[in-house]
Amino acid sequence: MSLTTSIANSNDLAPEDLAQLLFDRLTAETFDGVGITRECYADGENAALAIFRTVAEDFGLVTDIDPAGNLIFRSAHDDGVQPAHYTGSHADSVVQGGNFDGAAGIIAGLLCLIKINRSETRLRKPVRVIALRGEESSFYGRANIGSRALFGQLQPADLAAKSRGVGRTLGEAMASVGIDVGPISRSETLFDPRQALSYLELHIEQGPVMIARNLPTSVVTGIRGNVRHRRIVCVGEAGHSGAVPRWLRKDAVFAFADLIQRLDEHWQILLQRGLDLVITSGIVSTEPDEHSISRIPGEVAFSFEIRSQSHDTLEAFYQLFRAECRTISALRSVQFEFDERVDTEPARMDPAIIAKLTAASEALGLTTELIPSGAGHDAAVFSNAGIPSGMIFVRNANGSHNPQEQMEIADFMVGVDVLYHALISESEPVT
Amino acid sequence: MSLTTSIANSNDLAPEDLAQLLFDRLTAETFDGVGITRECYADGENAALAIFRTVAEDFGLVTDIDPAGNLIFRSAHDDGVQPAHYTGSHADSVVQGGNFDGAAGIIAGLLCLIKINRSETRLRKPVRVIALRGEESSFYGRANIGSRALFGQLQPADLAAKSRGVGRTLGEAMASVGIDVGPISRSETLFDPRQALSYLELHIEQGPVMIARNLPTSVVTGIRGNVRHRRIVCVGEAGHSGAVPRWLRKDAVFAFADLIQRLDEHWQILLQRGLDLVITSGIVSTEPDEHSISRIPGEVAFSFEIRSQSHDTLEAFYQLFRAECRTISALRSVQFEFDERVDTEPARMDPAIIAKLTAASEALGLTTELIPSGAGHDAAVFSNAGIPSGMIFVRNANGSHNPQEQMEIADFMVGVDVLYHALISESEPVT
Repeated sequence: MSLTTSIANSNDLAPEDLAQLLFDRLTAETFDGVGITRECYADGENAALAIFRTVAEDFGLVTDIDPAGNLIFRSAHDDGVQPAHYTGSHADSVVQGGNFDGAAGIIAGLLCLIKINRSETRLRKPVRVIALRGEESSFYGRANIGSRALFGQLQPADLAAKSRGVGRTLGEAMASVGIDVGPISRSETLFDPRQALSYLELHIEQGPVMIARNLPTSVVTGIRGNVRHRRIVCVGEAGHSGAVPRWLRKDAVFAFADLIQRLDEHWQILLQRGLDLVITSGIVSTEPDEHSISRIPGEVAFSFEIRSQSHDTLEAFYQLFRAECRTISALRSVQFEFDERVDTEPARMDPAIIAKLTAASEALGLTTELIPSGAGHDAAVFSNAGIPSGMIFVRNANGSHNPQEQMEIADFMVGVDVLYHALISESEPVT
Repeated sequence: MSLTTSIANSNDLAPEDLAQLLFDRLTAETFDGVGITRECYADGENAALAIFRTVAEDFGLVTDIDPAGNLIFRSAHDDGVQPAHYTGSHADSVVQGGNFDGAAGIIAGLLCLIKINRSETRLRKPVRVIALRGEESSFYGRANIGSRALFGQLQPADLAAKSRGVGRTLGEAMASVGIDVGPISRSETLFDPRQALSYLELHIEQGPVMIARNLPTSVVTGIRGNVRHRRIVCVGEAGHSGAVPRWLRKDAVFAFADLIQRLDEHWQILLQRGLDLVITSGIVSTEPDEHSISRIPGEVAFSFEIRSQSHDTLEAFYQLFRAECRTISALRSVQFEFDERVDTEPARMDPAIIAKLTAASEALGLTTELIPSGAGHDAAVFSNAGIPSGMIFVRNANGSHNPQEQMEIADFMVGVDVLYHALISESEPVT
C-alpha cells in the first residue's frame, strides 16, 4: 500500500532516483541480516517480483505471467502477442548475496520500458521486459531454471531436487507460486523462440576487469563454457620423508605442482595468441587421514576447470591437460585417476547485437571494450535456443555472490542509456 | 618359565635360529592384532625387555638397569665399571608398527656379545649392549627419550606430556617401571659420555634405497637433520573462476605450484653437485570451508621440510626457499605467512668408525655403500653427546612404522657379522 502510494507520488522522479528507490526497496524487503537472500519460487524472489510489478503497473505498464512463472512487462501499446525484443535478467539471488546481481538488469529494462511507454516515438517491434525466476544454482543445484523451463530444458530429476538438499522439491516450490508443473516435467516448450526477436541483458560484472581498466560499461562477447573434473586423484607412493631419496620418490604433491606449472605456461602462451581461456584448480588436498609433515604424500586430490568462450579452445586445452598428465605419470611414476568429465557449452553473443551495443556506447561517448563473461547467464540459454542475444556489463567492485558487491548508480545509468539506445535501434523506431 | 626352559635347551642353536626365535617371541608377546605395539615405559616395551633379559641371562650374560631404565648387558668378564664400547638400539615401537625397527639392533648386539662371551678371545675394552627405552615419538611426541634422559636432555615439559595426548604422563609412566624421575626432571647427566668409547647401532633401513641397489647392508654416513615449517599459508585472493582473467588473478594454488616446481629444480641441481638433500611438502590443503571448483583459491596451507646431513646445506636451502617465496610473492601478488621454524641438527657418524665398518664389510666380501639416514636414531643423540658413533643399516622392504616391514634373517645375519667384526676391531683383541 505505502509502496504504491509513494511511487505514484514520485512519478516525476528522475530515472536515477527511481533506480535508487527500487534498489533500496529490494534491500528493505530481502535483507537477511547479513546479505540479500531471494530464494527462487519462494518468499525472497516473490517479494522482489512484487516490487517490480507494483512499480511497473504504477507507471502504466502491463504485466503478464508466463507459464514458467516469470513476469513479462509490456507497454500499453503492445498487445503482447506479436514477436518482440526482450530485455531483462533474474529476480532471485544466492544466499547472503548482493543486491545488484540480477535485479540490475530488470530495473534497467523497466527504466527503458517506462521511457519508451511515455515517449511519442512508436516502435515497429515492441520491447518487453522479462523478470526471470531461478537463475542461481544455490538452492537447487541447477542454474537458469526460469529460462530453461521456457525452452523445455528441465527434466523430472531437476524438479525432484530439494532446496539446499533438504527442503521441499523444486516442483513443489514452483507449484507454490502457481506454476503448472506438468508441462515443465514433460520438457514441453513453453515459449516459442520465434516470439523473441532478440534478448538483451544488463548485468553487473562479476570479476575485476572493468574496475582495473576503468570502464563503467562493456559489451559482452560471449559466455564462457567450461570443462570440469570435480575430483582428480594423483596417486604416487607414501614414504618416510627423510629416508627416500629423490630418485626413488613418487611424490604426488610434486607431480601436481609440475602439472599446474606446465599448464600455467601453456596458458600464458595461448593468451599471447589471443585465445580466451581461464583455468582453475579450486580444491586441492592431501589425504587428512594419512598426511603428515614427515611423510611423502602418496596422493593429492584436486579439482580442475577450464573455461573459454570457444568450444574448440576448451577441447584443445583439455587434450593438452590430459597429455601433460600422461607425461608427468611417466616422468614421476604417478597415476592420475579422473572422475566424470562435465561439460557446459559456451554461448556466443550475436555479432550484429554486439555491433549495435558498441555503436550505442560510442554514440554516448564511451570507451567501449569487449569482454567475455566468465559466469553463466540466462542470455546463454536464450542464445543457445537460437535467439540473437547480447549483454551489457556494468562495473562492480568486490565480485558477486557476496554482500560486498558494489555498483555505482552513475555507472548503472550509463548502462541503462546504452541499453535504451540499443533497444530503440533494435526496435526500428517509426521516424 | 617356558621361555627360559626352551632357550636353555637350545643353547646349541645356530645364531640365525636364535635370532629367528627371538623375533618370533617378540611377535608372540607384542602383536596387537594388526601390527606390533610396544608402548614405551609400559607393557609392550617391558615385555620386549623381559625377553632380552631372560635370554641374555640364560646365555650367561649379566644385566644391569641404568638410571633411565634402559637395560645394559655385559659379559661375565666385564666388571661393568670401566669404559666400554656400546652397541644396541631401542626396545619400543610405534603403534601398529613392525617387529624389526629397534629390536634388530638389540638382538644383533646380544648375538655378538654371546659370541664374545663364549670366545677364547679376550678384549682390552669390554663390549656392552644397551636396550634403550622410548626412542619413538608416537606416544609422547618426543623422540629418543631413553637416550636423552641419560644425557640430561629432558625437561619438566617433556615429563608432563601425556601418552597419545590423553593418558598418563611420561613422568608417571617412567616411575611405573621403577625409574627415579627426580634427576631426569632436573636435567641431570645420568651417564658420563666418557664411559662410552663408541656407540654402534644396527638398524633396518626405513627407506627403499638398499632394495633398489641390491645391498644387504650399508654403512651410514650421518643422520639427517631437518628444518621444518608445520604450516605455511600462501594467501592470494579468492574470486569467480570464470570472471577473473589471468592478469588479475592472485591464485594461491598456482603460486604454490610455482614454488614447489622451482624448489624441485634447485633440488635436482644440488643433487648433481653431490649435496645431501631431501625436501617434502607432506600436507597441502585449500580451505575446506571456502574452496569450490569454481572459486579461485584465495589460500592454500602447506607444510615444508628440508632434510640434510649437512647443517650448511639445510641453512642454504632454507634461505633459497625463502628467497623463492619472496620472488613468487612479487610475481604473483600473493603473501606467504610462516609459522615457527623448527630445527633439528644433523649428526655425523664418526669417520674412523665409518672406515672400520667399511673395512669389516669388505673383509666379509660385501659390496659396501655409504648412505645417509633420513630417519632419526639414538645414534644421533650419542654422537651429539660427543661419543664416536656409527650405524649399520640392514635391507628392509616396505619402509618402517607399519606391520609390513620385512627384513630377511639372512640379511640380518650379514649385518650381525659386520657388527661383530667392527666391535672386535674397536675393542682391540688381545692377540
